[in-house]
Amino acid sequence: MKGVSSLSDILGEMRRTHHCCELGADDIGKEVTLMGWVQRRRDHGGVIFVDLRDREGLTQVVFDPKVHEKVHEKAHVIRSEYVLGIRGKVEKRLEGMANPKLKTGEIEVFATELKILNTAVTPPFLIEDGAEISENIRLKHRHLDLRRPGLQKNMILRHKIGAAVRQHLNEKGFLDIETPVLTRSTPEGARDYLVPSRVNPGQFYALPQSPQIFKQLFMMSGFDRYYQIVRCFRDEDLRADRQPEFTQIDMEMSFVGEEDLMSVSEGMMKHVFKETMGNDIQIPFLRLPYDEAIDRYGLDKPDIRFGLELKDVSDIVKGSGFKVFSSVVKKGGIVKALNAKGCISLSRKEIDDLTAFVAIYKAKGLAWIKVKEDAWQSPIAKFFSDEEKQALAERIDMEPGDLVFFVADSPKVTNESLGHLRNHLGKKLGMIDENEFKFVWITRFPMFEYDENEKRYEALHHPFTSPLEEHYELLKKDPLSVKSRAYDLVLNGYEIGGGSIRIHQKELQEKIFETMNMDRSEYEEKFGFLLSALDSGAPPHGGIAFGFDRLVMLLCGEPSIRDVIAFPKTQKATCLMTNAPSEAGKAQLDELALKIRKVRLES
Amino acid sequence: MKGVSSLSDILGEMRRTHHCCELGADDIGKEVTLMGWVQRRRDHGGVIFVDLRDREGLTQVVFDPKVHEKVHEKAHVIRSEYVLGIRGKVEKRLEGMANPKLKTGEIEVFATELKILNTAVTPPFLIEDGAEISENIRLKHRHLDLRRPGLQKNMILRHKIGAAVRQHLNEKGFLDIETPVLTRSTPEGARDYLVPSRVNPGQFYALPQSPQIFKQLFMMSGFDRYYQIVRCFRDEDLRADRQPEFTQIDMEMSFVGEEDLMSVSEGMMKHVFKETMGNDIQIPFLRLPYDEAIDRYGLDKPDIRFGLELKDVSDIVKGSGFKVFSSVVKKGGIVKALNAKGCISLSRKEIDDLTAFVAIYKAKGLAWIKVKEDAWQSPIAKFFSDEEKQALAERIDMEPGDLVFFVADSPKVTNESLGHLRNHLGKKLGMIDENEFKFVWITRFPMFEYDENEKRYEALHHPFTSPLEEHYELLKKDPLSVKSRAYDLVLNGYEIGGGSIRIHQKELQEKIFETMNMDRSEYEEKFGFLLSALDSGAPPHGGIAFGFDRLVMLLCGEPSIRDVIAFPKTQKATCLMTNAPSEAGKAQLDELALKIRKVRLES
Repeated sequence: MKGVSSLSDILGEMRRTHHCCELGADDIGKEVTLMGWVQRRRDHGGVIFVDLRDREGLTQVVFDPKVHEKVHEKAHVIRSEYVLGIRGKVEKRLEGMANPKLKTGEIEVFATELKILNTAVTPPFLIEDGAEISENIRLKHRHLDLRRPGLQKNMILRHKIGAAVRQHLNEKGFLDIETPVLTRSTPEGARDYLVPSRVNPGQFYALPQSPQIFKQLFMMSGFDRYYQIVRCFRDEDLRADRQPEFTQIDMEMSFVGEEDLMSVSEGMMKHVFKETMGNDIQIPFLRLPYDEAIDRYGLDKPDIRFGLELKDVSDIVKGSGFKVFSSVVKKGGIVKALNAKGCISLSRKEIDDLTAFVAIYKAKGLAWIKVKEDAWQSPIAKFFSDEEKQALAERIDMEPGDLVFFVADSPKVTNESLGHLRNHLGKKLGMIDENEFKFVWITRFPMFEYDENEKRYEALHHPFTSPLEEHYELLKKDPLSVKSRAYDLVLNGYEIGGGSIRIHQKELQEKIFETMNMDRSEYEEKFGFLLSALDSGAPPHGGIAFGFDRLVMLLCGEPSIRDVIAFPKTQKATCLMTNAPSEAGKAQLDELALKIRKVRLES
Repeated sequence: MKGVSSLSDILGEMRRTHHCCELGADDIGKEVTLMGWVQRRRDHGGVIFVDLRDREGLTQVVFDPKVHEKVHEKAHVIRSEYVLGIRGKVEKRLEGMANPKLKTGEIEVFATELKILNTAVTPPFLIEDGAEISENIRLKHRHLDLRRPGLQKNMILRHKIGAAVRQHLNEKGFLDIETPVLTRSTPEGARDYLVPSRVNPGQFYALPQSPQIFKQLFMMSGFDRYYQIVRCFRDEDLRADRQPEFTQIDMEMSFVGEEDLMSVSEGMMKHVFKETMGNDIQIPFLRLPYDEAIDRYGLDKPDIRFGLELKDVSDIVKGSGFKVFSSVVKKGGIVKALNAKGCISLSRKEIDDLTAFVAIYKAKGLAWIKVKEDAWQSPIAKFFSDEEKQALAERIDMEPGDLVFFVADSPKVTNESLGHLRNHLGKKLGMIDENEFKFVWITRFPMFEYDENEKRYEALHHPFTSPLEEHYELLKKDPLSVKSRAYDLVLNGYEIGGGSIRIHQKELQEKIFETMNMDRSEYEEKFGFLLSALDSGAPPHGGIAFGFDRLVMLLCGEPSIRDVIAFPKTQKATCLMTNAPSEAGKAQLDELALKIRKVRLES
């Protein structure tokens, strides 16, 4: 226990007077107390200089034997990441020694008292931004990684964004009401995390994929306006931008239509951007019906910071001599073009790379035309008549210097591949202003999609979404043509929120379940309580949920949500720091009435 | 689909202009639009009166054929809990018809337009406070239960308390940082909820009993001040005041001692009471060392709204002729007294009931003395000498009319039984002002308790709590006498918060684990990441967590936390509304590599 006996009440009467980014020229001459970590220690001319760091910034502390011999002597043991408490006097730095990069760069503190509050072993990496460290090392030592200024800033900005959201919604009369985490499976479409019940052996809770049904019940209870910044869970295979647990800003309102929800959301975003970034964003945001978004951008989350829109040329090429195009159109496919203005000088190699890129989205090929002053340079030019050429040139706005790409495939493949190609080219060609934030609402989504595996219609949003009134009659005869009252908010090509006006009528809700091939016993079993609630005075209502992690990521300018989550999990859903998940004891499993099956190794 | 086709966009252009508790004499003559639920419908003289309800209150709406014949005609179908949108004109109520109990009681709205936004079946109970409904019925129809004004008020107050907490802590520089829900077991002493991992078959996450280690890591990361209003989970057998999931206000600070934490907490409580109740509570709160609390009140969560303190009389009675007392003292037990001033008239039956009451806490008997003007009336009076009587009378402050109770037993049983008897009598004798809020800090808790089953020392608070500096040397030779730097906040006899100054030194932390009989391989396996973090520059730090549900319960004046949780679970840990937990499909269990064992029925 060497040394420890003096450490419990190690602070004694010492308390901070300032943080490490607070002192300036105005404080010269003051006696101050600072506490923090040793960012760097330098010895110069018999004097020890320490950059002391806390979450706010750095202050230079000087241990000078001429100021205090014993304190200087004691300071010799100081190493990086030691935790210090120092008392001293603020002095102006010598002429020419000021550091304009530092907020406290005009001053330094001459220490007259030093408490070494803790020592530190040498960290496995430098506590600095920009160091090249493998993400696994960072995640294993996350408490050190979180000391880096970049991650500190991200977590502080995350805090501020959350606070701004709450402040705005509180003012607008929304009530923050908590919903259960140990709950019942809801049909968000992804896999649930299950929690075995000990008291009810053989039974399981599900962790919520969203508080969807609960927030609708709040409307039926008359709470009128609800919100929550709430953890949700999906046991999906992880991609870069996904985590097993994530946070959403969840909202619901009564007695409203689409425009009310969008307007409240816009107000919230405007407030958040103003409070946290100082940006004055323009509202209302553009509204774009789903069909138009797909038509113009190929994707339902278009990045509208740049043009480069797709053009459907199916009608022009359907009778052309180029069989690849004409046969696709005959089979119900489409042909669309993307005009990379002024990109005629792209090399054959580059075009091949783009062909490989669209192949990721299942496009079987990428036709192209280089528009020269006098003619088209293209393997396919010869297949078109002059009339067709003229029509194409007009539709696609071809000008000398342009490079035009074509995909001919099913509507899905054509749009997805060209939509992603558009984003890819937008970045590659420098068409995107990275400092710009551009929002767009996508509205009137299809109500259903057809699940080829299950051979049935699935709700694209979720089954509680209201179809458009004028499409009710299509529910039976053509579910795929039914449009819904759903809306997504897209920011710079990322879907950051989605919601809908809900069904508030039991009859209609049953009709939707039936369209999805559920029979009465199935939906009564799963959603009986919701149907009964719809039957007991449900108001018209709607809501939205924003992906909080992703919103913070975009405001932080980070490429991954892992950089805005304190303790994220890996793509194998593990926590490298705590080694979660881990094995459970037999006694614990016995209590839960569970046995672990032998896992068959994949052959 | 009868009727539904007009309901999707049922609101049309109609939007609320006011809520149902907003209109008053100043609004007379205005054209307004209200939406809400039918609280009551009355017919009187050919006119239909409806009390329209929303979360804010009630407004009387009048359907008068003389004002609008068609709307009056349409209003005939209206029943309780129908959802209406009405447009109409605000009129002053007729002389003598004003309702002073209602905020909107001076006016009524004569409807000129009516939209029946939804119908409602007759609810299983009246949407009113005070109705006698079994809790199971209420929980099954929780969406209706939540319509009752009492629960609406509770949820709104809960929202306001949370907002006040956040506002205060944000201002004080605390950062709201989220911690994982899918995490690793931590040693809070209760059973963990486990979550099987699909990606890592045979392994489990644990739901956090508290974010204890994460918040300490935040301090080691330099975040300085952290808070979170966060869900926690304990798989314990449920009692009235417990839920499987509960919410805590979780805080941690760096470079502080006990007084800093207490002072921040007091400031927060003062702000919360001011903002939500309009109460001006006195700070600082009383501080009471654990030993003194037990001595004077028998419990470590004393209700200090009233006196009735315990008196230890072991020294007086240890040589007395009353063997029950003297032998207990000889065996290391104690004898304590409680003076129920002026209660001499309690009947034999009442005293018997109190004897049964203390038996719940394992007291084997309850001796008593009635103090008359001239003598003691008591089965035990005869055993004491005059000197002993005089000493007792002085110690216990006996006066004619008093009724004194005694318990003689182990210190634990004596204190617990008399402590609870004190609370019981305080209520029974009307000594408590139910409108008063009295806080007290309990400090200097024992560091360890001895677990008789496990035959080892357990941390009373948790193993990361720092012992008092001056007790380090006792760690080895007498762990039970070591006091810690833990503190609890007690309000009106309820523990509403607890925390401690933490260990920030690896060596000391290891020493604590070893005192708890863990060997190096065990604590390295479980807490290696914490020990490594302590070794990499951990600042002195401490924190506290408040039981949010319980705090809200006390401010709402409710007897159970179930009345301040939107969707609480039963004592069998089930949700009667959604029927969670429920069975899982075989495919799902297969994916998790789990099998359910046959549950052996208890014989």
